[in-house]
Amino acid sequence: MPTKLHVQRLTFGNKLVRVLWNAVWLLFFRPSPVPLHGWRRFLLRLFGAKIGKPAYLYPSTRIWAPWNLEMGNHSTLASGVDCYCVDKIKIGSFTTISQYSFLCTASHDYLDPVILHWPQMPLVTAPITLGDRVWITADVFIAPGVAVGDGTVVLARSNVFSDLPSWVVVSGNPATIQKERVLHLDAPST
Amino acid sequence: MPTKLHVQRLTFGNKLVRVLWNAVWLLFFRPSPVPLHGWRRFLLRLFGAKIGKPAYLYPSTRIWAPWNLEMGNHSTLASGVDCYCVDKIKIGSFTTISQYSFLCTASHDYLDPVILHWPQMPLVTAPITLGDRVWITADVFIAPGVAVGDGTVVLARSNVFSDLPSWVVVSGNPATIQKERVLHLDAPST
Amino acid sequence: MPTKLHVQRLTFGNKLVRVLWNAVWLLFFRPSPVPLHGWRRFLLRLFGAKIGKPAYLYPSTRIWAPWNLEMGNHSTLASGVDCYCVDKIKIGSFTTISQYSFLCTASHDYLDPVILHWPQMPLVTAPITLGDRVWITADVFIAPGVAVGDGTVVLARSNVFSDLPSWVVVSGNPATIQKERVLHLDAPST
Repeated sequence: MPTKLHVQRLTFGNKLVRVLWNAVWLLFFRPSPVPLHGWRRFLLRLFGAKIGKPAYLYPSTRIWAPWNLEMGNHSTLASGVDCYCVDKIKIGSFTTISQYSFLCTASHDYLDPVILHWPQMPLVTAPITLGDRVWITADVFIAPGVAVGDGTVVLARSNVFSDLPSWVVVSGNPATIQKERVLHLDAPST
Repeated sequence: MPTKLHVQRLTFGNKLVRVLWNAVWLLFFRPSPVPLHGWRRFLLRLFGAKIGKPAYLYPSTRIWAPWNLEMGNHSTLASGVDCYCVDKIKIGSFTTISQYSFLCTASHDYLDPVILHWPQMPLVTAPITLGDRVWITADVFIAPGVAVGDGTVVLARSNVFSDLPSWVVVSGNPATIQKERVLHLDAPST
Repeated sequence: MPTKLHVQRLTFGNKLVRVLWNAVWLLFFRPSPVPLHGWRRFLLRLFGAKIGKPAYLYPSTRIWAPWNLEMGNHSTLASGVDCYCVDKIKIGSFTTISQYSFLCTASHDYLDPVILHWPQMPLVTAPITLGDRVWITADVFIAPGVAVGDGTVVLARSNVFSDLPSWVVVSGNPATIQKERVLHLDAPST
């Protein structure tokens, strides 16, 4: 088991509040019109999320436990993103998570011998941290415990299982560094 | 065409019952609160599923044809799992299918010359069988006809196109064996 | 930035019509029974889609901007397909897009120095073109600007980042040609 992961036991209170949050999500968050980002920020803050302003969370974004989400200014969670924050997820400013990407903070210890006399594998978790100006593009998987440095771009459908430095462009399974992200400072801006 | 696959012709009755099942899913299964696993087992058994007790099926799990699903005790289908059982899917006991994994029993014979004078490729299917204590982790693809042995773990985002033996840990595209799954019997249990 | 991509600026009118389309989708398209393909074609045509007859669009298919979708006769968009047509998507006849595949016409220019004084990266797009008798199988990613020739099959979970010729079978990440698609003309038809 990677050393970052630690065992979690979910309390009854945690489960109860999530039932309530899921009901709020289904009735008020999911059906809300796309432009009402302020309304969705309000709902998340009610359940303890720390969210900058502006920040854009699309209606089909799922957040497992809003109280574990911290998100900077001008950041975005796009349609279908799964912010599976069983552990803390901290997202910087000007950072975008594109469609269907999965920020996954939880796993199971599948080598624990407890499974010989108990029906479930122990739940283990580790926080995910994304810096400022990061772009997680479409359908990327970020594993528990991963930290991504400022300005880094993860290209579509990549899988990130270990930490990434700042201002690089990565892709693949597992994601590897393709090049540095060097802005076209001499080009005419669009 | 792999020899396991065989041609299926869906009857009008099959389609009719699935329209009914889809309506039941949308109205009663999908909006049900997470803890009501017994209620969702009840709905699936009404449509012919054989499901152990306890077994956990989350509200956003999709089951194409409940009458083709067999599932042991203490097993779990997590959120967003697609149990695409056009053919039989048999899941053992103490087995977990994590978020977004796709158990896909159907394909098309794309080499059949029938497409020269008919709009559709023939539907071909093969059953999927998962043993006991298997863990299919997040966003894994299991191809038609695959059998996975007891105790095997398929790591996140892998693609499984052929049978897997028992008590191994696999990953990648296509999934290959990384190591044996050896429990930490000498470690203090969590 | 690949030369096919060009900068898009979305007008207020575009956003307004999409709010309306999203409401229509959520209320009338998503909950419609599977067999009512004609009803869903009608809704899409109301918003400017050019769709052949018959053509099959499943209830959980998402279409970002129907007016950017062109689709031939006897073609299919399966459950969970995301037709992200910020730019044009042109699909030929007798072509099938299977479950969860993502036709992605939009990206961002992440090297533009505008990000040093503006919160967002410029939106860039390029059209996607799929020929006749193409089969995009399950959970495939098609990148902006890609053209796929007639008769080509992209196997499950592949990622297509560049153009593909006609009548080949491809797979992998990135997808590479595995073989030609040669019909079994001497075999007895199923």
